[in-house]
Amino acid sequence: MLRFGYDIGGTNIAAGILDENKHLIEKGSMPFPRGRGTEAVIGVCTELYHMLLNCAQKTEAEIGGIGVAVPGSVNPQTGIVIDAHNLGFHHTPLQALLEAAVQKPVSLINDADAATLAEHRIGALCGTKTAMLITIGTGIGGGLILNGELFRGGRGNGTEPGHMVLHNGGRQCTCGIEGCAETYCSATRLAKDGGAFGCTSAKGTIHAAKAGNAEAKELFDCYVDDLGSYIVSIVNLLDPERIAIGGGVCGAGSFLLDPLRRNVEAKCFFETCPEIVVASAGNDAGIIGACLIVS
Amino acid sequence: MLRFGYDIGGTNIAAGILDENKHLIEKGSMPFPRGRGTEAVIGVCTELYHMLLNCAQKTEAEIGGIGVAVPGSVNPQTGIVIDAHNLGFHHTPLQALLEAAVQKPVSLINDADAATLAEHRIGALCGTKTAMLITIGTGIGGGLILNGELFRGGRGNGTEPGHMVLHNGGRQCTCGIEGCAETYCSATRLAKDGGAFGCTSAKGTIHAAKAGNAEAKELFDCYVDDLGSYIVSIVNLLDPERIAIGGGVCGAGSFLLDPLRRNVEAKCFFETCPEIVVASAGNDAGIIGACLIVS
Repeated sequence: MLRFGYDIGGTNIAAGILDENKHLIEKGSMPFPRGRGTEAVIGVCTELYHMLLNCAQKTEAEIGGIGVAVPGSVNPQTGIVIDAHNLGFHHTPLQALLEAAVQKPVSLINDADAATLAEHRIGALCGTKTAMLITIGTGIGGGLILNGELFRGGRGNGTEPGHMVLHNGGRQCTCGIEGCAETYCSATRLAKDGGAFGCTSAKGTIHAAKAGNAEAKELFDCYVDDLGSYIVSIVNLLDPERIAIGGGVCGAGSFLLDPLRRNVEAKCFFETCPEIVVASAGNDAGIIGACLIVS
Repeated sequence: MLRFGYDIGGTNIAAGILDENKHLIEKGSMPFPRGRGTEAVIGVCTELYHMLLNCAQKTEAEIGGIGVAVPGSVNPQTGIVIDAHNLGFHHTPLQALLEAAVQKPVSLINDADAATLAEHRIGALCGTKTAMLITIGTGIGGGLILNGELFRGGRGNGTEPGHMVLHNGGRQCTCGIEGCAETYCSATRLAKDGGAFGCTSAKGTIHAAKAGNAEAKELFDCYVDDLGSYIVSIVNLLDPERIAIGGGVCGAGSFLLDPLRRNVEAKCFFETCPEIVVASAGNDAGIIGACLIVS
């Protein structure tokens, strides 16, 4: 059977069809209907479903089920999105609404968990039993593989790795705590602090550091040290086999990865360091992970 | 069958006999023969074995196996203590040496893992699937229960929760990193910083804070905030059901636990906070945990 997956974000709703070999045979995206209510979201999802089936020349009968990745907390048992601030979803029965619209079984998953599942099944975390995906973007997201399975949190709340404390009492985080890893290790930090010397994006700061701008280089070195210590916290707690890093900053390639690996190696408590690699499931990781939860 | 367990520390070697109901029916301890080599350690262990069997009026035939908890890294497969600095053990084949001396199958376990196992089977972590023991002493130790089992690390190195980074770039830790949780949340910190106002122990600082000494209260509040943020890092990553805290500082009772729970609750990313409780397996947790690894 084929599987259909959505990756619903605050800007776009992306969707795709996964075949038996875990290949995405068709994908597409439409703008998220911001401020137009849940019904409009279901409308866009339904349209995408029929359009993509049509493009792929597949029938509804060939679809075994549908997975939906959302940027927020979900209860996979009840099929309710508890909170997804960017989507305006609060205690929204997304599973029931979508099942009614497309007449297929629907399952929900957090988007970071979906990306982690994709990395574990077809990406950079393949073959691991204990591993982590850290996604560096506006914030810090990610997911854990424990015991060879996606870990959904000890109480079902998932993981919020961006809100581990790296500088207690430090910078104010959006979550209310001072000093969260997110405020020091996100791309936002590179963009914000880069403002001091005229850079307005993480990419700009990295580019300036590469080009030899002393202030940019100092900021970048400080960023690498913060990210290194953050990773060390996870390594010393869980002793993972591998850590994959995703998000735009990975575009820096070895300019980031080489000093980061050295930093973690120097600080890691254990004799040897786990592998630190770049995530490889790409931008479609959310869609693919959503498909992969369809049983 | 009965099980025999050792908890080998740098000061004492404690040992005991566990019955089928997981009750410690006999226990004893002897000084660790510091500086007298591995042979002397095996000698003391052997003596303890025969003495305790004799005290309990049990025969060697009734003992199913022996577990040994050591303060360091062990390889349970090879039976080798990789490093236990306080014991002077480095790549020491403790399992083989002890098996030769007492003619029983011997298994090794890290002492923090042994204590965690004891808490999980007969103590404060009973019935949990995802939980943690944090032991606060000279340093910070502890162990993880994941998937209802003792977690031995993704690569078999165990967990080193004291070396998660809480103040990156902060105080120098013995491990070489700056800002480890251990340097801010251990009892040592309360003793060391208490020196500024004449306190020489964690107990002394806590007592002074309780008695209304303003400087001691300020230090204690700061300590609670650090310990709270440290626990929050673990909560936000693993979403555990319960966290048990062990070690001498727990003697402070609700003077520590009440503000600590409020601190974690205020900072926890999730809607509800996991339980924070005092470890209950007591000083014998190491011996009991060692016995529990005997299959």
